[in-house]
Amino acid sequence: MATYKAPLRDMQFVLNELLEVDQTLAALPDFAEVTPDVINQYLESSAQFAENELAPLNQTGDIEGCKLENGVVTTPKGFKEAYQQFCEQGYSSICCAPAYGGQGMPLTLGLPLMEMQISANVAWSMYPGLSHGAYSALLAHGSDELRQRYLPKLVSGIWTGTMCLTEPQCGTDLGLIKTRAIANDDGSYSITGTKIFISAGEHDMAENILHLVLARLPDSPKDIKGLSLFLVPKWIPDAAGNPATRNAISAGSLEHKMGIKGNATAVMNLDGAQGWLLGEVNKGMACMFTMMNAARLGIGMHGLGLGEIACQNAVAYAQERVQMRALSGTKHADLPADPLIVHPDIRRMLLTGKAYNEGARAFSYWLALQLDIEEHASDEAQRQDAADLVALLTPIAKAFMTDNGYTVTNLSQQVFGGHGYIRETGMEQFVRDARISMIYEGTNGIQALDLIGRKIMMDQGQKLRKFTKIVHKFCQAQADDAAMSEFITPLQQLLKDITDLTMAIGMQAMTNRDEVGAAAVDYLRLLGHLVYGYFWARMAKVALTKQASAPAPFYVAKLATARFYYSRLMTETATLKASIQSGAKNLMEIEEDAFALGY
Amino acid sequence: MATYKAPLRDMQFVLNELLEVDQTLAALPDFAEVTPDVINQYLESSAQFAENELAPLNQTGDIEGCKLENGVVTTPKGFKEAYQQFCEQGYSSICCAPAYGGQGMPLTLGLPLMEMQISANVAWSMYPGLSHGAYSALLAHGSDELRQRYLPKLVSGIWTGTMCLTEPQCGTDLGLIKTRAIANDDGSYSITGTKIFISAGEHDMAENILHLVLARLPDSPKDIKGLSLFLVPKWIPDAAGNPATRNAISAGSLEHKMGIKGNATAVMNLDGAQGWLLGEVNKGMACMFTMMNAARLGIGMHGLGLGEIACQNAVAYAQERVQMRALSGTKHADLPADPLIVHPDIRRMLLTGKAYNEGARAFSYWLALQLDIEEHASDEAQRQDAADLVALLTPIAKAFMTDNGYTVTNLSQQVFGGHGYIRETGMEQFVRDARISMIYEGTNGIQALDLIGRKIMMDQGQKLRKFTKIVHKFCQAQADDAAMSEFITPLQQLLKDITDLTMAIGMQAMTNRDEVGAAAVDYLRLLGHLVYGYFWARMAKVALTKQASAPAPFYVAKLATARFYYSRLMTETATLKASIQSGAKNLMEIEEDAFALGY
Repeated sequence: MATYKAPLRDMQFVLNELLEVDQTLAALPDFAEVTPDVINQYLESSAQFAENELAPLNQTGDIEGCKLENGVVTTPKGFKEAYQQFCEQGYSSICCAPAYGGQGMPLTLGLPLMEMQISANVAWSMYPGLSHGAYSALLAHGSDELRQRYLPKLVSGIWTGTMCLTEPQCGTDLGLIKTRAIANDDGSYSITGTKIFISAGEHDMAENILHLVLARLPDSPKDIKGLSLFLVPKWIPDAAGNPATRNAISAGSLEHKMGIKGNATAVMNLDGAQGWLLGEVNKGMACMFTMMNAARLGIGMHGLGLGEIACQNAVAYAQERVQMRALSGTKHADLPADPLIVHPDIRRMLLTGKAYNEGARAFSYWLALQLDIEEHASDEAQRQDAADLVALLTPIAKAFMTDNGYTVTNLSQQVFGGHGYIRETGMEQFVRDARISMIYEGTNGIQALDLIGRKIMMDQGQKLRKFTKIVHKFCQAQADDAAMSEFITPLQQLLKDITDLTMAIGMQAMTNRDEVGAAAVDYLRLLGHLVYGYFWARMAKVALTKQASAPAPFYVAKLATARFYYSRLMTETATLKASIQSGAKNLMEIEEDAFALGY
Repeated sequence: MATYKAPLRDMQFVLNELLEVDQTLAALPDFAEVTPDVINQYLESSAQFAENELAPLNQTGDIEGCKLENGVVTTPKGFKEAYQQFCEQGYSSICCAPAYGGQGMPLTLGLPLMEMQISANVAWSMYPGLSHGAYSALLAHGSDELRQRYLPKLVSGIWTGTMCLTEPQCGTDLGLIKTRAIANDDGSYSITGTKIFISAGEHDMAENILHLVLARLPDSPKDIKGLSLFLVPKWIPDAAGNPATRNAISAGSLEHKMGIKGNATAVMNLDGAQGWLLGEVNKGMACMFTMMNAARLGIGMHGLGLGEIACQNAVAYAQERVQMRALSGTKHADLPADPLIVHPDIRRMLLTGKAYNEGARAFSYWLALQLDIEEHASDEAQRQDAADLVALLTPIAKAFMTDNGYTVTNLSQQVFGGHGYIRETGMEQFVRDARISMIYEGTNGIQALDLIGRKIMMDQGQKLRKFTKIVHKFCQAQADDAAMSEFITPLQQLLKDITDLTMAIGMQAMTNRDEVGAAAVDYLRLLGHLVYGYFWARMAKVALTKQASAPAPFYVAKLATARFYYSRLMTETATLKASIQSGAKNLMEIEEDAFALGY
């Protein structure tokens, strides 16, 4: 069975040595007291909870899955108890507003904790994960009355939340939503329809479930602009706030899924369920957008969390399992064969995991810091800059991190050979669990269109320049550091290539919009490598500096991993550039019905 | 649920129009009568069997899996009956020797039939698939008595076979095998040990199971040179050839696997089981090698077969499912949204499937033809040339085809969005089923080492030159065809790059053997693109020629797919070259225990 050890050393490196988050947080009025000591305390206790309470339930949760009988969902053994402990120890409220019982901690701290929960048990982590999305939407768009009534119990974790968007006929294209809302006399709405793929839609872990439902009023536009967002509690509370009346929303069935089997993915039927409007009529999508960046970053973390635990276990296996002698001659003569880790290609697989995971960690924690700045800085220009960076880079966090996470879980499984295909080692579960992250919360193809279309083309690259300036400035600052040139030279080249390519795509798009769609996915990965390349160069700089004053094997390994990233992963950019430059014609010239002419 | 339609048009294109296999087969004494008509008859009846009998059992087989109770394995409902029909209709004997009841057909015909069975039901296809491996080993290395006694029933399918190699402590490194064989007085052997991951190791589909077991005699060398191969029947036949005595080999347990759940993967315990030597003592590995090329090509076919059915279903879904409007403007105003297939990135995913599948089909059928030439040509030089090409290209068939097949099943799943993650559509099963093909029959990393080490470096590139000459000659012959230059120019460039890189790696290897291991996997993919590039150029040539005389949408689509391959898939070579050139240092410099310093 797989085991988990929270990567505290690397987390502390990113937070304290690389990003020095305490300095940024100190400047934000709400977080002035979030010192490294405070951060470390949270990290350490959370690590224990993830390692000792959540990880042991991961495989059994996968095997047992969730069961639906007579409308009641039973989650895997131990899930409920772990959730209870989670709430009692205050984990559900860490990043919530003090006004509703939260501890008011920054997302910069919340994200590493989320990473641990995902690594240890991704299916379990989605129950509180979905609640936080509901919390954010309610906080931003609920009336004062709704917030007072619902938020404290959501914050304490006594109640959980869901997002009900997808319907059988639409996932990506929410404009096709059919669920109907009709106004009641008392200001509430009566909602009818079917929602599918609802994570944590029904379960036995909490007293009540608050569903956020996208639906359409009778006289609303028939497209994406006609959607409104509603709060539909499973149990409608009485005046005292206690669950009192069972609402007409229920789980019709649970999906049989490839993975994340410990999470109940439900078909939810609404049959005149009573709901309350959040935000304004027909502004449902705008309401969703306010929480979408954090939600997408959260899914990006699935790529890191699963990549991390998969790679950890592959490293341990490669150190223990002996098989064949090293090509360069016997390394461990005392053993019947050398451990796998002597073999170059095994190292390639493990280093791919290490480099993608640590790159993702640096990037995602930094992005969380930008989200904190966007929400909490007192200076508006600073907030706007952060908001622009978050808007630009969130699709990269979602898609690039999950694509890489899937690659890493697969390579880690490969290290195990045939044993990786067998349930017992736990490796194949990581692959199955990681697969969904490339699909939900907007497929990675949709993320790519969002990036190149909405985030870059729409403002003529203004947001992009905010990020490229940061990279450029960093490169310039290293001009006199010869030890950094192995990173800076290719990074600057990539920066220039991206600038040129962006311009070229923009020009082509003026005559053919398909050029944007044809470039999108490769373009996102190209930008992803700029982002990771930037953070790996920064990590190399810190490692070089620290190594000079306080040498440690950790820094030596960091530098070696940076070199690996630049030599063996960033090389993908050559292919991405060539594919982008090949244009849309090779995708569009074939007729729609010609795909099937070979049968 | 997924459906399957055998790609008969494309199969016929490859066999009759591209390879013109009847001309080659006509020159082989054993196959002079294998005309296109004969081939087509087999293809068509086999297509019906695969589509109507095997495909409907694929999903139920996955859900039910195999059960072991009191030593008896029950296969999924319908498997046994389908196998009975398979034998009755003569499919098990098609490529077997007439001397033992076979129909004496070439592998060139057998491979397309195998492709269909894999597409329709890979777990089921492995029962007869393993038998054929046992048949080949017995035929090549069994004594006359053993062959007379066992082959007819293996050929008719009444008995099936297995390969028992792997043990708990070794998969790749068979030199570590512990299973012991002790000579009995009657010339047989008494064999004791534990074998794991034995596909079709125990089941209820046949009257008897013939296990081929690698084991070590007491005084044999303690390494790979001390292994001998034994035939160990589940039931020892009496003088009349009927199963009579239950042998001491039994299934201890069945593995819980990620996929191919309809195939029983057993732990086999041998407790003094009676076995008979095949070939010579201590030549077990040599015996294995004689059938390894066909076996590895067979696993390569898993990549094609699963890629084909996954892509077919993704195409159908993309044509039906409507979601969003085309970026370039509404295409189907009568529908609430445009079908997925209008979107450039959906086309990229589908075309990747189409290009990899059809490239694999051309390559693998050609390789099967080389296997037939190797075994049946009357001219020794011709046999040797074919043998060299087979030896060189088999690791590419195994690894490149299965890597690409996994990519294709994943992209096809992605086309389905969230529905691809749900069991009902069948798409996630294809991913799970395809995953093992990159691992067993020698991991793809091992294939890469076999290619670059044993097949290329060991003879200073002599075998490689036999293939590059073919490519070179083809390129030269197109010199005056302007329409071909878009393929020939990059193909010639790749040929030159590979020649240069091979030389460079060879030079580096003289001082550091790790350079070979560090380059291996990328090098195999680079050569894979040369192979597919060559076959795509040849297919383009045929399509251009036919289009001039008998225009058809099929040829137009073929040409468009060739262009896609060259523009969007062969572009990977840029990255592969850069990674290879980066050398071994970035993999080897990090210390063995430094991989875990971040926890």
